[in-house]
Amino acid sequence: MKATAFTVEDIPLIKPGYDIGKLICEKTGIEEHDIVVVSSTIVSKSENRILKLCDINVTHEAQTIAKKNHNDPRFVQAVLDQSEEILLEMPFLLVRMKNGSICVNAGIDHSNVDGHENILLLPDSPDESAKRIKETIFTITGKRVSVVITDTNGRAFRMGQTGAAVGIAGIKATRDWRGTTDLFGRILEVKNEAIVDEIAGFSNILMGEGNGGTPIAIIRGLEMFYEPGTIQELYRPENEDVISKALRYQSI
Amino acid sequence: MKATAFTVEDIPLIKPGYDIGKLICEKTGIEEHDIVVVSSTIVSKSENRILKLCDINVTHEAQTIAKKNHNDPRFVQAVLDQSEEILLEMPFLLVRMKNGSICVNAGIDHSNVDGHENILLLPDSPDESAKRIKETIFTITGKRVSVVITDTNGRAFRMGQTGAAVGIAGIKATRDWRGTTDLFGRILEVKNEAIVDEIAGFSNILMGEGNGGTPIAIIRGLEMFYEPGTIQELYRPENEDVISKALRYQSI
Repeated sequence: MKATAFTVEDIPLIKPGYDIGKLICEKTGIEEHDIVVVSSTIVSKSENRILKLCDINVTHEAQTIAKKNHNDPRFVQAVLDQSEEILLEMPFLLVRMKNGSICVNAGIDHSNVDGHENILLLPDSPDESAKRIKETIFTITGKRVSVVITDTNGRAFRMGQTGAAVGIAGIKATRDWRGTTDLFGRILEVKNEAIVDEIAGFSNILMGEGNGGTPIAIIRGLEMFYEPGTIQELYRPENEDVISKALRYQSI
Repeated sequence: MKATAFTVEDIPLIKPGYDIGKLICEKTGIEEHDIVVVSSTIVSKSENRILKLCDINVTHEAQTIAKKNHNDPRFVQAVLDQSEEILLEMPFLLVRMKNGSICVNAGIDHSNVDGHENILLLPDSPDESAKRIKETIFTITGKRVSVVITDTNGRAFRMGQTGAAVGIAGIKATRDWRGTTDLFGRILEVKNEAIVDEIAGFSNILMGEGNGGTPIAIIRGLEMFYEPGTIQELYRPENEDVISKALRYQSI
């Protein structure tokens, strides 16, 4: 199997209202079944998911947590507003978001946002955002592509952050090896591979962070096109998550 | 930035004593600063890290745990023998290995091992294994490459498994963005990107599992060569790991 991966160059600073799908078609040639990887940062900006800290009304709960983890109470409030449950208050704020995603600070970002008092939320419906980009690309080019919207996340048990998928379209979140056989004919029992996270991770290397970052990458050569596909497949049902359960138990 | 990635075809079934570095040079052309990604399965086989279940003496502890998680007590004993600490006994056996890696079943594999009663341990010193492959490739071709040895792991909080690095040489485990600035000139504070896991993940897509799997991939075009590099950089110091702490707390 062979694949090529490259970043799309010459992407301008994204402002609210920009059409990311159209921009991609203007900046690069798209081929059938390309995987188009887009940083959530620019999707959020195009969808105007920017909050001004000064507009946030802080509750007592946010005040209390902010004191514990030495954060801005307005930022903590923004995280709480996106969250269904708090799993850890310190040393960092780990939450389960309303869509089931478990991540630090509900994926809210201070970096690469214009204005010191602005923060950037994740797209409201990342699968929908991915679908819009996919459909725009199809309308303009007639090519069917997969879209993976990415964020950078820390992980339990291992140092460092990696790219992770937060919204997808035209690709299945996992590749299921269960029921296939191994080299010696025995049935594989447990392999369900989170390919969209693996794609997001590698794209992260290409895209980079900071001011040299290029927020769009194309992966070509993998046959992964699938409809419809949803990121929800990666979010563990609440009652099946033993690690979250341990964190809850600890906080009682 | 642009990269290509491809699998090395026509790899035979690996047996103890096989020289993986030599095999790679025979099967593909290597270029300076290629990243050579190798499944831990074949590294372990070449190093004869195969255990027969019937040779394992089971302790009372392994018996007790095996009853709880419905596993073979001999398999549980093999996991315990590789481990420093048990973090979860059920529904799966999550351990901290002697080298600091936290993973399920100490990375011991039933699949793709010849003989129903055989299991396969991870390489004893995966960084050393990676270094040997790197040095063999240099001796034969004169090219300096990075080597990443991979396994497939589950993750906390997210469904599905992804490729992860277990041993490296000629590459740094992380790329440190701290101190660089974002698009608006502010210092990035927390980004330390676990690039070797991102590389392992993407290679996992190319390599596949089961009987169609191709256990070696080459990634070309990323400038990641660095000496010496060690996987230990990804293993969190025991006292800094809040998730492990919660699991310990729960088990008291």
